[in-house]
Amino acid sequence: MPEKLNIVPFVSVDNMMKLVLTIGVERFLTDLAGYIEEDFGRWELFDKTPRVASHSVDGVIELMPTSDGETYGFKYVNGHPKNTRSGRQTVTAFGVLADVGSGYPMLLTEMTILTALRTAAMSAVAAKHLAPKGVRTMAIIGNGAQSEFQAIAFKAIVGVDRLRLYDVDPAATRRCAKNLAGIGLDIAACASSQEAVEGADIITTVTADKQCATILTDNMVGPGVHINAVGGDCPGKTELHRDILLRSDIFVEYAPQTRIEGEIQQLAPEHLVVELWQVIAGNAPGRRDERQITLFDSVGFAIEDFSALRYVRDRLKDTGLYEELDLLADPDEPRDLYGMILRAAQPAPVRLSGALG
Amino acid sequence: MPEKLNIVPFVSVDNMMKLVLTIGVERFLTDLAGYIEEDFGRWELFDKTPRVASHSVDGVIELMPTSDGETYGFKYVNGHPKNTRSGRQTVTAFGVLADVGSGYPMLLTEMTILTALRTAAMSAVAAKHLAPKGVRTMAIIGNGAQSEFQAIAFKAIVGVDRLRLYDVDPAATRRCAKNLAGIGLDIAACASSQEAVEGADIITTVTADKQCATILTDNMVGPGVHINAVGGDCPGKTELHRDILLRSDIFVEYAPQTRIEGEIQQLAPEHLVVELWQVIAGNAPGRRDERQITLFDSVGFAIEDFSALRYVRDRLKDTGLYEELDLLADPDEPRDLYGMILRAAQPAPVRLSGALG
Repeated sequence: MPEKLNIVPFVSVDNMMKLVLTIGVERFLTDLAGYIEEDFGRWELFDKTPRVASHSVDGVIELMPTSDGETYGFKYVNGHPKNTRSGRQTVTAFGVLADVGSGYPMLLTEMTILTALRTAAMSAVAAKHLAPKGVRTMAIIGNGAQSEFQAIAFKAIVGVDRLRLYDVDPAATRRCAKNLAGIGLDIAACASSQEAVEGADIITTVTADKQCATILTDNMVGPGVHINAVGGDCPGKTELHRDILLRSDIFVEYAPQTRIEGEIQQLAPEHLVVELWQVIAGNAPGRRDERQITLFDSVGFAIEDFSALRYVRDRLKDTGLYEELDLLADPDEPRDLYGMILRAAQPAPVRLSGALG
Repeated sequence: MPEKLNIVPFVSVDNMMKLVLTIGVERFLTDLAGYIEEDFGRWELFDKTPRVASHSVDGVIELMPTSDGETYGFKYVNGHPKNTRSGRQTVTAFGVLADVGSGYPMLLTEMTILTALRTAAMSAVAAKHLAPKGVRTMAIIGNGAQSEFQAIAFKAIVGVDRLRLYDVDPAATRRCAKNLAGIGLDIAACASSQEAVEGADIITTVTADKQCATILTDNMVGPGVHINAVGGDCPGKTELHRDILLRSDIFVEYAPQTRIEGEIQQLAPEHLVVELWQVIAGNAPGRRDERQITLFDSVGFAIEDFSALRYVRDRLKDTGLYEELDLLADPDEPRDLYGMILRAAQPAPVRLSGALG
């Protein structure tokens, strides 16, 4: 790792792809899930600041900071549904990890890909604790950018090996199935959500760009199912019929945020939900019986990004997949910032052996 | 400017120094002051979110976002007084400018040097509106990293050409005087603050690492003086005796923040202060008479950083002093993020002329 005080390691999009390919996407997701479980297990240590949002007509820009007292992390993330019209991503992100003791950044990384990975790892961690044991079949409704990551995370972490895909756009389903070919998943492309959920033990909803849609209706959800609701993730954006919520035991990341952004914005503010960290820490039961419907109402929380940043930071040394960014001013004498600029105008001095400085 | 969607221009510390040297520090400060005045003149347009602080035993990490509705900016900045012991800067910073319409970052830049420049430009803008006309002599008490920037900004923007320097550490004064030699300033090194303020029209206090210090006592401040109080900038850190505040007309950047962080934390919360933008926008008078004591209680506000980010962004094209950072994922098809990773594992395809792509 760089020891020069001016340098911050930077993981570009290119290096993030190489990191995923070098480690292998299943291993990456499994390891990352371990980091998330570790951080959720020490949840109470973290600063849980609400995200700082700047809303505009076309979208939102958010800063999501958190800290465990030793390490500080934040993510910059935007959400602009119309971006695809200009060939841009709806969501892009980057993040920073810093040392609380000195305030110095220790990592800058792309997080568009990393967020997709951590969202999938988070869903799989929830299912590991909430879905019935030994389940193998998952429906994925919504086959966009997040769908393959969800499929692979559930394969690697939960043991899912049969997928039932549905999207309003059949081309999206074809692309998802093609991207997932040859890795040991039995994939069925379905003609409707109704068909997709038939025989599914886990139902993942991950649609985009819908305002208060009803992707799942009450009659589609049988006893014992685990629902992984990923797409309802901002005010006014939900995917599930309210009746499903009333039949389910609901698990969330951070209740104050999920009540604003998640499926449970459809419920009364006092409706009982369980924060998932309580299950992971052993303070609350997860699934209690085979007929219970469990629902993970996922919106994404800063601590998951923190786990992802930690995981990437811990891989830098072995892989070398980073660049050195000259981000921090490092004058010879900390109080002489202006002198550093003056000296930058001079030709480099001849270094004598044993010279001071 | 880069047109590739994955690229964000990055200004390193090295390129920031080159930018300052290419433009010239006086011109840089003068132009930057113009950007600050422009933004202060349209103050009411801005989102004025309080800074988001993460405090720890040794310091603080802050995110300072703002937006004018078209452009969004934020700064990451730390404050760790003990950092100099390990050869680190007390304050380091970097910042991002982004397009509100798409949420895409358009600039990432070092801001340790840039913050020093904007702080000095801000002080000089305030003095331009508040100090008596035609003044030439400034005392600078505290000759650390910010002192040379203050001196040069007041020379370029206010017309100061005589400096009276004092620091508890005579080596700091010597270094400051040496760094400022040969640019047309008449510099006197003084043995005490009392000696430094003799005959000074403007008194700049910019000391560090002091808790509720009294750098200026009441008897040191005569009628007609403008005080530029820069060093009192966080809770518990002040430089002026309270009696001086009671004799002064006090101007601040953003009152809700300054009441927590500035000199006026010593006063009652209802004590009358004027936000400087009101003076710049012509809504409030600045200096009214020759015997009035004016005080600019500077703590640094997000809009100044926004002005600085805009200024640097506007210089990129002409100077070329930036690198291209591969920060944003840009799949061929926005919904096919996972496919982009898969394709990164393949050898690059041979491009046929006229092929689809």
